[in-house]
Amino acid sequence: MEVPFLPSTRDAALSQALIAAIDNKTKPRGSLGMLESLALQAGLVQGTTSPRLHGASMLVFAGDHGVVEEGVSAYPQSVTWQMVENFLAGGAAINVFARQSGMALHIIDAGVNHDFGKRDGLISRKVGPGTRNFAQQPAMTAGECETALRHGMALVADLGANANVLGFGEMGIGNTTAAAAIIHKLADTPIADCIGAGTGLSADAILHKGRVIEMAVAHHSHATAPLDVLATFGGFEIAMMVGAMLKAAERRMMLLIDGFIVTSALLVAARLQPSILDYCVFCHCSNEHGHRHVLKKLHATPILQLDLRLGEGTGCALALPILQAAVNFLSQMATFDSAQVCTK
Amino acid sequence: MEVPFLPSTRDAALSQALIAAIDNKTKPRGSLGMLESLALQAGLVQGTTSPRLHGASMLVFAGDHGVVEEGVSAYPQSVTWQMVENFLAGGAAINVFARQSGMALHIIDAGVNHDFGKRDGLISRKVGPGTRNFAQQPAMTAGECETALRHGMALVADLGANANVLGFGEMGIGNTTAAAAIIHKLADTPIADCIGAGTGLSADAILHKGRVIEMAVAHHSHATAPLDVLATFGGFEIAMMVGAMLKAAERRMMLLIDGFIVTSALLVAARLQPSILDYCVFCHCSNEHGHRHVLKKLHATPILQLDLRLGEGTGCALALPILQAAVNFLSQMATFDSAQVCTK
Repeated sequence: MEVPFLPSTRDAALSQALIAAIDNKTKPRGSLGMLESLALQAGLVQGTTSPRLHGASMLVFAGDHGVVEEGVSAYPQSVTWQMVENFLAGGAAINVFARQSGMALHIIDAGVNHDFGKRDGLISRKVGPGTRNFAQQPAMTAGECETALRHGMALVADLGANANVLGFGEMGIGNTTAAAAIIHKLADTPIADCIGAGTGLSADAILHKGRVIEMAVAHHSHATAPLDVLATFGGFEIAMMVGAMLKAAERRMMLLIDGFIVTSALLVAARLQPSILDYCVFCHCSNEHGHRHVLKKLHATPILQLDLRLGEGTGCALALPILQAAVNFLSQMATFDSAQVCTK
Repeated sequence: MEVPFLPSTRDAALSQALIAAIDNKTKPRGSLGMLESLALQAGLVQGTTSPRLHGASMLVFAGDHGVVEEGVSAYPQSVTWQMVENFLAGGAAINVFARQSGMALHIIDAGVNHDFGKRDGLISRKVGPGTRNFAQQPAMTAGECETALRHGMALVADLGANANVLGFGEMGIGNTTAAAAIIHKLADTPIADCIGAGTGLSADAILHKGRVIEMAVAHHSHATAPLDVLATFGGFEIAMMVGAMLKAAERRMMLLIDGFIVTSALLVAARLQPSILDYCVFCHCSNEHGHRHVLKKLHATPILQLDLRLGEGTGCALALPILQAAVNFLSQMATFDSAQVCTK
């Protein structure tokens, strides 16, 4: 299938103008550290020396995973739909943090193994009742994968011009196993470096999870192209995020990247369109073993390091104020001239 | 002089109740990382399982330093008063970030070498027109130091019950030199580990700054008690912060600790009243060489690592939303029971 072409945001003249504007603010050069690189990036994504954020929104994609049959998760599959209910009732961590950060929260059923019926506040894009067990067969067909990608793109297109910064979150029991397999395949990272405790596995259970992935990878050795890897090991929520990310970057939004699973979706998108990384803000380094490795592969510097390992997009909502501060200092601080402060 | 006695916030029964409340929230145990320890700390400081933040305020203390005569700063001394004018006009980084974080901003002239006259928005507690050059003589007399401490305590007493979280910031050309000397003396840290670029020194100039401190420390070898060290090497803004911190902890506020200079003030306070650390939130690890060392000595885990080196309390304003998120998840998230989500 065709995916949007994403140009690099590189622009030498605009970079120079942005750096001059940043350096003219009343502070020692470079003293706002990562906020200065975020301000530069925001300017480049928006193609202006006066970037602004508006309509910050969070998309949380939920989906189930057949591979839980192999005993790879500490929690039963039913927790996926129960947590979706929790999102709808406003009681989960992402509800609290999105509310605090002023983000509009959208919950999408990408493929949960549960019939929610018609529900206010739930965006139903169910591709199927969870994926198949990839230890036995591909998690989805190429057609299902394409459907998920298209839904993701359409969801972002529907947001229109109402938002220019978009957070990505997920919920899906078993999805650290899917993400680990994708990262192993697409980032050339040893399986041992991709697996972690997820929601709370013991050391033995982590080893078992590694063996499940190892056997599945051997079984599906033909899958090497990004979309094949996605269809073989991914989840409906992961595939839908890939589509949403590609469309968001095409719309020149800034993409807030959360933890391990969201980064696995980004990895697929980046293998299709490498310049997508220009649009991404890496919100945090998660405590899920493996996230650190994939961030390094992507040459990504995360904003926060708070030992989070929750998902749901929580890292995005927590990091948004830092991105906002970067944009705000650029637009609101005085210059040495305007404030009549001596330079060196 | 007498300083407030600060009890530890330790409370085994309350800790147990807070940890149970945190673990009952709908998330895997420990998955909110540092937010969980912040929530626990907030509960212990406030003596409740339902901590709340209100009236978050930022105190920015400005003062000048006689030691700038030795050529230890990249900027001229006049930048101190010019930046105070910038604070009053709303154009500095701390104005932008405090506004964004909803913090009330208070600017205090603790001892700037400039006559501001009577000015709206400037709290005048000028102990003197800058300290003396500590390369030649003690920066202040014991009496001046005590005056500064008392002013700091009174300022916080005046805030009354209107705030329970207080950020500390500073402005003062030359004050990384004063802070380095204090940290060297009180944290038993080699001078080379205490000195850095400040507002932007060259490598040679940093070495010179180190030699100035080395000679001054030899000259004032008798100064070892915390308040003697503070009077000998400190600044009026640093001493006033020490007083303000002690009073804030006595009022059971949470103290937001900014960068290198604010941490040097805290070090003095902690040598007087070690339990003050129970009340402190370490907002960030600054890019000023030496901050990392003193944080380690204090066994402090900073919230942010953004390579900031600006001061003004900017790190506090940027970290406040994370502390707020910690308090919010504890008060607003559903429990496994209330949301009917399966535990393992």
